[in-house]
Amino acid sequence: MKNFVVHELLYHAIIAHPDQVIVSDGKQFTFRQFYTRVVKIANSLNKQGIKKGTVIGVLDVNSHRFLEMHYACSMLGAILHTINFRLAPEQMVYSMEHAGDEWLFVSDVFVEAAKPLFSKFHNLVLMSDNRGQTFPEAQAAFHYEELLEQGEEKEPDGINDVKETDIFSIFYTTGTTGKPKGIQYQHRTIITGSIQLFHHLALHKYGARLSSRDVYMPLIPFFHIHAWGMAFFPLYLGAKLVLPGVADPSGQLALIKKEKISWMNMVPTQLQMLLDQKGFGNVKVLTGGSPFASGIAQKAQQAGINFSLIYGGSDQLATAISVVPEEVDPHTSEALEWLRVGMRPLPLVEVSLRAKDGRELPHDGKSIGAVWVRSPWLPNCYYKDPEISKVHFIDGWFRTGDLGFFSANNLLYVADREGDAIKSGGEWIPTGMLEAFISEHPAVVKVAVIPKNDERWGQRPLAIVKTSENISRKELLNLLKTKVKKGKLSKFWIPDQFIFVDEIPLTSAGKLNKKVLRERYSNAK
Amino acid sequence: MKNFVVHELLYHAIIAHPDQVIVSDGKQFTFRQFYTRVVKIANSLNKQGIKKGTVIGVLDVNSHRFLEMHYACSMLGAILHTINFRLAPEQMVYSMEHAGDEWLFVSDVFVEAAKPLFSKFHNLVLMSDNRGQTFPEAQAAFHYEELLEQGEEKEPDGINDVKETDIFSIFYTTGTTGKPKGIQYQHRTIITGSIQLFHHLALHKYGARLSSRDVYMPLIPFFHIHAWGMAFFPLYLGAKLVLPGVADPSGQLALIKKEKISWMNMVPTQLQMLLDQKGFGNVKVLTGGSPFASGIAQKAQQAGINFSLIYGGSDQLATAISVVPEEVDPHTSEALEWLRVGMRPLPLVEVSLRAKDGRELPHDGKSIGAVWVRSPWLPNCYYKDPEISKVHFIDGWFRTGDLGFFSANNLLYVADREGDAIKSGGEWIPTGMLEAFISEHPAVVKVAVIPKNDERWGQRPLAIVKTSENISRKELLNLLKTKVKKGKLSKFWIPDQFIFVDEIPLTSAGKLNKKVLRERYSNAK
Repeated sequence: MKNFVVHELLYHAIIAHPDQVIVSDGKQFTFRQFYTRVVKIANSLNKQGIKKGTVIGVLDVNSHRFLEMHYACSMLGAILHTINFRLAPEQMVYSMEHAGDEWLFVSDVFVEAAKPLFSKFHNLVLMSDNRGQTFPEAQAAFHYEELLEQGEEKEPDGINDVKETDIFSIFYTTGTTGKPKGIQYQHRTIITGSIQLFHHLALHKYGARLSSRDVYMPLIPFFHIHAWGMAFFPLYLGAKLVLPGVADPSGQLALIKKEKISWMNMVPTQLQMLLDQKGFGNVKVLTGGSPFASGIAQKAQQAGINFSLIYGGSDQLATAISVVPEEVDPHTSEALEWLRVGMRPLPLVEVSLRAKDGRELPHDGKSIGAVWVRSPWLPNCYYKDPEISKVHFIDGWFRTGDLGFFSANNLLYVADREGDAIKSGGEWIPTGMLEAFISEHPAVVKVAVIPKNDERWGQRPLAIVKTSENISRKELLNLLKTKVKKGKLSKFWIPDQFIFVDEIPLTSAGKLNKKVLRERYSNAK
Repeated sequence: MKNFVVHELLYHAIIAHPDQVIVSDGKQFTFRQFYTRVVKIANSLNKQGIKKGTVIGVLDVNSHRFLEMHYACSMLGAILHTINFRLAPEQMVYSMEHAGDEWLFVSDVFVEAAKPLFSKFHNLVLMSDNRGQTFPEAQAAFHYEELLEQGEEKEPDGINDVKETDIFSIFYTTGTTGKPKGIQYQHRTIITGSIQLFHHLALHKYGARLSSRDVYMPLIPFFHIHAWGMAFFPLYLGAKLVLPGVADPSGQLALIKKEKISWMNMVPTQLQMLLDQKGFGNVKVLTGGSPFASGIAQKAQQAGINFSLIYGGSDQLATAISVVPEEVDPHTSEALEWLRVGMRPLPLVEVSLRAKDGRELPHDGKSIGAVWVRSPWLPNCYYKDPEISKVHFIDGWFRTGDLGFFSANNLLYVADREGDAIKSGGEWIPTGMLEAFISEHPAVVKVAVIPKNDERWGQRPLAIVKTSENISRKELLNLLKTKVKKGKLSKFWIPDQFIFVDEIPLTSAGKLNKKVLRERYSNAK
């Protein structure tokens, strides 16, 4: 290996861990068998004309075939478009057209839903054990397993032409507003960023520490930054990997028991659903992507779960991991609180707080600023989107769109989205922090704080709350007043109004849909 | 940070860990103070004409000033020549002339010894707190602390012109034969290689596992691959670093107690000397560079030391780390044995076993072959030495000069140096393995196995043994016969002769000096 090219990870895997296994769809593949399948499909696809630069869309849950496509595309120099199946149908089509997909690989999980797409794309490959199906709608249709069988068991031609700065993949963010934004990663950036993430997790004593002895199952789908790097790191570590397919929480729990899974990644919503399953616990969990309520954190701790939060995203990869600061006793509730909110930037990553005018703000425990990030794996634009790129990719930095501050012990606290924060009487009020504090009340299931238009102050905070039982406005006010007394929030931040609702609208990515909430409530009386 | 440039490590360090400390020479510097000193000396040196490409020789033990020079050279784009002070004087001069040193930085530890060098080099900087000394022998002499005081507290001009593929450092191997060989590392290769080494150590459950909470002290000097990467990783991790200066074993022990050191690196000889100190124990130790006798391993284990061995070298950086295989109970003597000899190639590293004709040999637990290595941080030549480069750097691979095999569980066992192995009746006999087995006898202090010329077989093994008490040849024969019975060695490998000696000559690097031994004993009767 001379360079950071994705498929080169396989060489180490088959030298050091040839008999380690990948479990998927009730089957088991050793790393060596996996490698053989990868070279065979790559060779076969090469014969079909797939080569350096061909863009391949893959629509699948986390499966062995999808994983194989990561490494086969790498060997061919083809660009893997991991299609975001949580996008609305027209957004999905937009993303495929925008990325320039020439082939569509679709698993039987999505074949019905994807039928309207077939006529649009020249070449279709069905990823399934079922070979009976035919697709008259598609111009050319293939069965993955048949192609694989036809492949030669040797590395495809052109494999040595793949360079670390070539594009490896493209994927699209689930934008709550506007069109999905595409991000391309080079072989080098996706590998160094992923490696940095899981190495950082290995360095810490508490939280979702990982090691080569863990058994891994990603609940984050591959289209989210290749399952937050999980497409790479079990092979890299020589660890067992279990791919969950379409398992629901009870199916996931069955897999955890059967395969002795010890390390998973998931968003807080998935964690909450698993915690509702009897018998779930004693695993390590990396979570992130949306605020993590202290109620879930406590419940997770009670279930013997060691968790860490990740701060990052499709457009910046991994930026920070929550840690227990050195000076904090790891067995206290304070440690739990730090693991929920105190983010340490990964080594090699720089985080800068910026004022509106781009000036750097001090890390003084109170100055709230826009979070800007710089790292060796940062992309330099959104794909074919110069206008929006100009707003976010500035002079080697990525403007995340988040607001945050650095605590006294130099941990980053991400307080809010820039667009979500409330400007009241000229001062910022971070809604994310308010939501975190309100969610500490045991009866609060979900909470969204949005700006309410106000004649005197411009905007004032309004809290929309979903509870598991009836509680009064007073109870929440008392909770926040305690926080004011402890110096954790300004009295001025306390919401003027609390609205109790049965349901809070979410985006397709499971985040609070503040756009809808504002339309509905910002002028509420 | 857009790229892997050495001084960029500092930016993360001062954002995430500004108050963490470096202890050196009885003083303490926070990372922020350290950064300030680095930019000041860099600025001052820039004014003296040091710029991109200037080669700077530094002759010092592990000290804060030497560490500062790593980062200052990086900011200037200057090339740091970490002078190997274990070379013979004429070899040292050769290395400085060969590297093209334009400046010589020397600490008061070496100032007397280095005086003959002063007239040869244009510019001299004394690294010392003592500013009284003058050097009429040198054409231009400076005091480091004076230069530093004169420096501006801002990053030097040209800092943005330093690229990751620029040369960061050069250092020379202690060749036992011939001239020292120079190796240049780019910013990128030295950083990715070092990071990979300590990350790999973090991933394992046993041995010299490291974490961000450890306190680090390198006993490996900076001229050995920047103390095996220790010039970089405490800053990278945000961990406390203690630089030992010239401390002898009892001084080292005092530092361990005082600074609560928990992680160190050292060669086996240094470990043996520390183990002879009363009260040494309960630390993690990374060792390597020469064979590690099982007697020391047992003694280390009894002292509560968690150790790992590294396999690598100046010309390949880190290649493998010893591990306890998953299937072995970590509390057994078998686990200890694996930690001593079972090397797992680092992720991203490929190891290949080659026959004489370059053909790849199987990893079948018995085929002994030449160890070839490929990694993202491999240099592509010895500096200005095309002849010897051709022998070792072949088609992207480094031919290490070692012989080894892969055990059944895919761990690399490095059996011998190619030049040391014995060819007896057409078969290889690996002397390193024989030495390891013989050293298991509790009375064996050191052992070297060399070829003895033999009319019938060409060569036969001869063991030179130093013991702590009188033992018979018979005892050693019995030990080896047990190994034969267990299938661990071939009967044919048992030495024909054992010579008991009072002292075994070592090289300047502390390795068995087989050249001298052969001259002395290969024709012994």
